[in-house]
Amino acid sequence: MRKKTFRLVISCPDRVGIVAAVSQFLNERQGSIIEASHHTDIEQKWFFMRHDIDAESLNITVETFREEFASIAEEFNMRWYVKDSEDRPKVILMATKESHCLNDIMHRWHTGELNCEIVGVIANHEALRSMVEWYKIPYHCIPVPKENKMPAFQKIEACIDDAQADAIVLARYMQIFPEYLCEKYRHRVINIHHSFLPSFIGAKPYHQAAVRGVKLIGATCHYVTADLDAGPIIEQDVIRVRHSHAAEDMVRLGKDIEKLVLSRGLRYHLEDRVLVHGNKTVVFAE
Amino acid sequence: MRKKTFRLVISCPDRVGIVAAVSQFLNERQGSIIEASHHTDIEQKWFFMRHDIDAESLNITVETFREEFASIAEEFNMRWYVKDSEDRPKVILMATKESHCLNDIMHRWHTGELNCEIVGVIANHEALRSMVEWYKIPYHCIPVPKENKMPAFQKIEACIDDAQADAIVLARYMQIFPEYLCEKYRHRVINIHHSFLPSFIGAKPYHQAAVRGVKLIGATCHYVTADLDAGPIIEQDVIRVRHSHAAEDMVRLGKDIEKLVLSRGLRYHLEDRVLVHGNKTVVFAE
Amino acid sequence: MRKKTFRLVISCPDRVGIVAAVSQFLNERQGSIIEASHHTDIEQKWFFMRHDIDAESLNITVETFREEFASIAEEFNMRWYVKDSEDRPKVILMATKESHCLNDIMHRWHTGELNCEIVGVIANHEALRSMVEWYKIPYHCIPVPKENKMPAFQKIEACIDDAQADAIVLARYMQIFPEYLCEKYRHRVINIHHSFLPSFIGAKPYHQAAVRGVKLIGATCHYVTADLDAGPIIEQDVIRVRHSHAAEDMVRLGKDIEKLVLSRGLRYHLEDRVLVHGNKTVVFAE
Amino acid sequence: MRKKTFRLVISCPDRVGIVAAVSQFLNERQGSIIEASHHTDIEQKWFFMRHDIDAESLNITVETFREEFASIAEEFNMRWYVKDSEDRPKVILMATKESHCLNDIMHRWHTGELNCEIVGVIANHEALRSMVEWYKIPYHCIPVPKENKMPAFQKIEACIDDAQADAIVLARYMQIFPEYLCEKYRHRVINIHHSFLPSFIGAKPYHQAAVRGVKLIGATCHYVTADLDAGPIIEQDVIRVRHSHAAEDMVRLGKDIEKLVLSRGLRYHLEDRVLVHGNKTVVFAE
Repeated sequence: MRKKTFRLVISCPDRVGIVAAVSQFLNERQGSIIEASHHTDIEQKWFFMRHDIDAESLNITVETFREEFASIAEEFNMRWYVKDSEDRPKVILMATKESHCLNDIMHRWHTGELNCEIVGVIANHEALRSMVEWYKIPYHCIPVPKENKMPAFQKIEACIDDAQADAIVLARYMQIFPEYLCEKYRHRVINIHHSFLPSFIGAKPYHQAAVRGVKLIGATCHYVTADLDAGPIIEQDVIRVRHSHAAEDMVRLGKDIEKLVLSRGLRYHLEDRVLVHGNKTVVFAE
Repeated sequence: MRKKTFRLVISCPDRVGIVAAVSQFLNERQGSIIEASHHTDIEQKWFFMRHDIDAESLNITVETFREEFASIAEEFNMRWYVKDSEDRPKVILMATKESHCLNDIMHRWHTGELNCEIVGVIANHEALRSMVEWYKIPYHCIPVPKENKMPAFQKIEACIDDAQADAIVLARYMQIFPEYLCEKYRHRVINIHHSFLPSFIGAKPYHQAAVRGVKLIGATCHYVTADLDAGPIIEQDVIRVRHSHAAEDMVRLGKDIEKLVLSRGLRYHLEDRVLVHGNKTVVFAE
Repeated sequence: MRKKTFRLVISCPDRVGIVAAVSQFLNERQGSIIEASHHTDIEQKWFFMRHDIDAESLNITVETFREEFASIAEEFNMRWYVKDSEDRPKVILMATKESHCLNDIMHRWHTGELNCEIVGVIANHEALRSMVEWYKIPYHCIPVPKENKMPAFQKIEACIDDAQADAIVLARYMQIFPEYLCEKYRHRVINIHHSFLPSFIGAKPYHQAAVRGVKLIGATCHYVTADLDAGPIIEQDVIRVRHSHAAEDMVRLGKDIEKLVLSRGLRYHLEDRVLVHGNKTVVFAE
Repeated sequence: MRKKTFRLVISCPDRVGIVAAVSQFLNERQGSIIEASHHTDIEQKWFFMRHDIDAESLNITVETFREEFASIAEEFNMRWYVKDSEDRPKVILMATKESHCLNDIMHRWHTGELNCEIVGVIANHEALRSMVEWYKIPYHCIPVPKENKMPAFQKIEACIDDAQADAIVLARYMQIFPEYLCEKYRHRVINIHHSFLPSFIGAKPYHQAAVRGVKLIGATCHYVTADLDAGPIIEQDVIRVRHSHAAEDMVRLGKDIEKLVLSRGLRYHLEDRVLVHGNKTVVFAE
């Protein structure tokens, strides 16, 4: 039912003529544009663009598109890619024992809301196996012992690589990703942090929030980098709390925001709506 | 400080080649695009576009732009205009006795937040004269007697026309605009209705809300049409209420939403971000 | 871990001395109050009160409490009840084919967030059986043929009564409840309507919203009455939409609000936080 | 129109019998309770209570109330006060050059929304004199030279004391209050910080927010303490931003949140709805 589209995503130094060149390219191939978004970062002098093009109108393969577009890309010094919307990205989910984010993502995927293939769940406990397997998703339990984590992360790495995962979603995965994996899977590991970053970095953010007496709590979906909870932010939201909410109430209320923010962030990522530049994102939300 | 720009606003039947034609036109004139927004209404097969172009980069007047663009416009059957951002639109505000919306707009204008010229306030009472005159804005008191309103509206019409107002803002003006003026100033009269339309059309919406026991109240900024509270919606927002809020509390709380929604809607209108199509709007918010 | 409490819920004509009488009653029995909420409807001259009392501090059974409190209740002409928080209410869920609300409620219940017993799911299709049965909840498929609905509703009634359900949750159940069942289960049938009532009553509210061009869409949790979508409202919320969202996008975005609003409303109901008076509710949210 | 009430505000160690004692005291004097709010901090074992009592129903003066209540207060070791709602608190506003918060508060006061007496505006520049004087409020310009601030703050102190101000509102006052004044006016100096604390403490929070790439910006109303931007939080709120918003757009958008949050916080303070305990507040919002 969803139309097959090609998604052309570009970022490059800003200058006159980029849009003209790209739109003429599309026009020459009779490309019907379904959605187009632009952004110019005036300060950085950098240009960002995303097109969703009706694939049928073009009548060429994504490979041909890629070849033919290359010279324009070179001319304007673009970082760019084009994707067929029917090439569904492969996603690995990672979790510990909390199931609210995991259940939310799997349910959205199951009902066709998320355009991806979930190729596996990696968890450091057995707790969620039965729920995951109901969805017929492979479950990999890889415990991460406190005293020696490296072998566990090597198994995780192998598991990710075997599955050829395009994206790794930390759905309340309670382990810190090692630096070398952050580097290896740069801008492909998506985390949900249970605070409105940059407030309350690190452990037990709801307890930190309760101690500080804030009147709103939040959640942040971001790309994981070696710098803890400091990667590029994709999406955030908050919910109101009162003096009557103890830390454990915040934990409960926060779950609703965590799962919403993570699902929204993941959706933007899967639809190629997130362009990273430095430590910030451009998000072309619908 | 704000850059002088030309705003090119277009709506037309959708087809391949519009963006290419427009962007080539701009490219040939070395136009540097500061902001660009597109929307295709798939169902209606209608295309909408707004460009904010650095005027200096173009090095032509807005009149020359207008002449030279005309042939493209004709080719694609466009409804369109181009405006110099330094030609500040003339605005008339209308009010009764309530001052919260009026004060909010005048203060924003006074501090340079709204890029327009406020050429006058028309009110059917004297209550707000001193506040308005502090801002050095002409105040026209035109009472509207219940038994014979037409002469009053003719005076209002003359006042609007004398001032050559581009936009008329009903800032809690408690009179129904006559049909012929709705027609005459089509898509130029902006109203704030104190409910989340289409709920609670007509008089005393907060009292209607209190009776129905809703948990959120709202406000709606819309273009005025002959059909009461049914014109194209520009902006809406809501605020939470509880059982402890009586109708008069809603009146107080609602004011904050009314002034925010009206100011936002007015800003969008003044920046040529609102494109009307049928009874709906496309709003290219920043 | 949750403390056992007695919940004393009262509504009665307002007069001086109610709080004194109740608090002295509790004080004499050494009752430690964990949460107390009052509301006076000035216009209606009606008083509402809810207490959550540490059951251990009282050292009597809920039956004894009930007997001993009766004379105060009579004196002040109270509608009232007291409940042991460990007597978990029995809940029946009803659905059609859409699973987002059902999955959300079952998951919350499964993880211990909702303090109730889910005694069954009644659906008019088989589509959701496997998901429900994973949670080990009995699934009753009772089709409702267009031409003759009454026998189906009699089966539904029998099913509800067999299960001794305290609450019936219409989790996107796409059938109109017959009037006699609305009466029989008065203030016990909870529905989620996919609009911000009173806007867009009846069928296809998102399509109505798309046609009207609103800038926010919402959902409403309310008690079902014979008057369609007009029963007492428990909870509402909204989400922002733009011109780029077609009706089917609203359907998708709306789901997130529907499930949140329904779960919140259900939680309030299960914790005896909702007091109905006329066609309105007092909701003592935490 | 507003009823004259006595506001009884109490905080004390939690134990059985407090509510009974207070409500019996009120009952004996025929006190009709218009609004009552309780909170027990389970962890801290501390109890908070606020009553709004119809003054007419009591038929005693606030002084008599004060005398008669003293023995109960002593018994339960209460920090407490009772106030006549018609004794309007005296408020001093402080500002620099930015007028949005100042204008918002003065306008609310002018239209009768804020139940206080504004006894003066202290500013370190002349910029806002004419606006303030339109409201017939005394304007004190006290410049604060960089190299020697103490004499200025002594003048400010004298000005506050001369006016017998109950509350001091820093309405975007761009100077750090000296520690001895924070101590002297403990829990009486209200500040608006233009970030969602504890994020972005200190100078230029919007620029910090732009650098970090957050998706929401906020404002925080709090009591000023010697510890910069770390005092007890009264109220907070946020607004959504996008990649298209540069720091100067955030400055503009943030103003709307700043003035709303400050006005709400001030209102809570003036209505004795804010109870400070340690570094946190209990806010009995209506």
